[in-house]
Amino acid sequence: MPIASQQGWLTPSRLFYQRNHFEPPAARAGGWTLTVEGEVERPFQLGLWELTRLPAISLWATLECSGNKRAFFDPPAQGTPWTEGAVGNAEWGGLPLRAVLARTGVKPGSIEIRFTGLDSGRHQETGETVHFERSLPLAVALDPATLLAWRMNGEALPPEHGGPLRLIVPGWYAMASVKWLTRIEVRRQPFRGPFQVRDYVYLPERGAYDRAVPVTAGRVNSFINWPVGGSVAPPGRLTVQGLAWGGEAPVAGVAVSPDGGRTWEPAVLAGPEAPYAWRQWSCTLERLLPGELVLRSRARDADGREQPERAPWNAKGYGNNQTVPVRVMVSRSPMLALRPGPAPSPPRSGPLA
Amino acid sequence: MPIASQQGWLTPSRLFYQRNHFEPPAARAGGWTLTVEGEVERPFQLGLWELTRLPAISLWATLECSGNKRAFFDPPAQGTPWTEGAVGNAEWGGLPLRAVLARTGVKPGSIEIRFTGLDSGRHQETGETVHFERSLPLAVALDPATLLAWRMNGEALPPEHGGPLRLIVPGWYAMASVKWLTRIEVRRQPFRGPFQVRDYVYLPERGAYDRAVPVTAGRVNSFINWPVGGSVAPPGRLTVQGLAWGGEAPVAGVAVSPDGGRTWEPAVLAGPEAPYAWRQWSCTLERLLPGELVLRSRARDADGREQPERAPWNAKGYGNNQTVPVRVMVSRSPMLALRPGPAPSPPRSGPLA
Repeated sequence: MPIASQQGWLTPSRLFYQRNHFEPPAARAGGWTLTVEGEVERPFQLGLWELTRLPAISLWATLECSGNKRAFFDPPAQGTPWTEGAVGNAEWGGLPLRAVLARTGVKPGSIEIRFTGLDSGRHQETGETVHFERSLPLAVALDPATLLAWRMNGEALPPEHGGPLRLIVPGWYAMASVKWLTRIEVRRQPFRGPFQVRDYVYLPERGAYDRAVPVTAGRVNSFINWPVGGSVAPPGRLTVQGLAWGGEAPVAGVAVSPDGGRTWEPAVLAGPEAPYAWRQWSCTLERLLPGELVLRSRARDADGREQPERAPWNAKGYGNNQTVPVRVMVSRSPMLALRPGPAPSPPRSGPLA
Repeated sequence: MPIASQQGWLTPSRLFYQRNHFEPPAARAGGWTLTVEGEVERPFQLGLWELTRLPAISLWATLECSGNKRAFFDPPAQGTPWTEGAVGNAEWGGLPLRAVLARTGVKPGSIEIRFTGLDSGRHQETGETVHFERSLPLAVALDPATLLAWRMNGEALPPEHGGPLRLIVPGWYAMASVKWLTRIEVRRQPFRGPFQVRDYVYLPERGAYDRAVPVTAGRVNSFINWPVGGSVAPPGRLTVQGLAWGGEAPVAGVAVSPDGGRTWEPAVLAGPEAPYAWRQWSCTLERLLPGELVLRSRARDADGREQPERAPWNAKGYGNNQTVPVRVMVSRSPMLALRPGPAPSPPRSGPLA
């Protein structure tokens, strides 16, 4: 997702980032089934039509790839070198998973739920042929916001985003939101598939799986979408805009630095509010003089966690939420005649054209 | 827009209702110009590229056709017999009109602004060949939420929704949001074009133009999107869901009647909040017995205005915000195994499949 295109709150499905481990399966809604089994009182298999005739609830959730901003680790980490675009905000529609589990019944002693996608292939490190599979602790699976989703942005969930059926786990990095979901297993033992214990773990050094810490909830993060890095701004006043989101807790505030992180000014949170969705923010810098600005945005969540200047390095490059510099030149002349902002100033220069 | 498809908060552009007076013009972004003239200090003409390179601000606004629910007037009113689908909620991106007017300067003594769409044709009543044109009082035009919009739901504004450039007037019935906007004229006199004084006026009887009252801000309104009229619900508990919006003021509350309007229960407002956008709501009815339910939803705005059981009749059928009955049968057996709701009940019947 090109972040300069993210000027609004919604990310259109067409622009939403895609990250899959295997080729998307030839998933057809017609023959799709969801199996719920394992430690349940009443295992069952359900056709998609049986699920989707039920009334969807909808919620907004910002999903971020745990490898977002991996490119900013130094030394480089293993994995796709995402910069800042592996994040998006969409409306997801479906049924809370717990409504289905209330029907199957969960046996006492169960601790986890395993989710299997229809996509499969060879795992890069282990060489095994596996499906993409992940598990969740029971409490997270039973959260009312954990959805079996078949709608995205008001339409059928597109195949490239996991349609016909995807698990949505708001607040967690997006590897938890298993696409092409076809099987749910309630378990008494922790699941130890390769996408649970080899990938998506914080490793203090390469291969140190004995000290692996699982990647779970998202970390507070933000980006600047205006001005675009490398652009030229007029002297005087500049409104910096962007988006900010939490994972473990919602965003509580954003600050903007005009000097690379030396000084900070508070931004104003704006736009729609929804529990698991990012917030728009803006911050108007005044009395800018000609020269280079190094802008940074720094979000803080409701528990007081803040984006660091450098995220803790880990071998596979997950969870990087550090602030990122955006360089802008302030020109000597007011060459840009119109600028956005909540309160446009009175005319200071000649006509527009 | 089929209201049963409106299960979420966002209305996808593809499903958003369309109501035009003339054929959409062959509007090309390349050659598009916006002229700002009349009582301004510095008239100008602007190419679309000059406008759209500027950073868009975005806001959510629910737009409703003033003829929505016209079909419920009795006796029938003149005009397209819309039922409930001429309303939708989208994210609009563009520049506040007042930022442009701050640059052109508005001369003292100006009272109105006239907006001209590129579309034209013969006016049905007067027979004149005219463009679609409307005016706004200066104060409304200068409201920071009145936008020159070139984006809808995060993408380029589609031609069928007024692209490349549309005026968006949040809070007003949607005739004010002139599509294919190409000319803005600042005026000292009220504009009296046919879409200002013949159409979009409340007429106590046919032809009574001497007593015409202009259609302006929207009236508080709502609909039920679940359950769908004519469906069968299990006995016991039923969660009724829908959307509600204001015009002059935001929605403050919604009530639901299970008996056609005799008794009312409060609904819970839910989902995202944004100043000019509708709210999702739900209301769980308990201990339903077999038989017919006649559901109605009734929204109330922050100024205490409520939807009436019958809207005041007017000859052209505008501004109907009355409550609408939705008939549902409650069956004798719990044949629907899964139902939505914030707190799913424990299993009461056998397995799902």
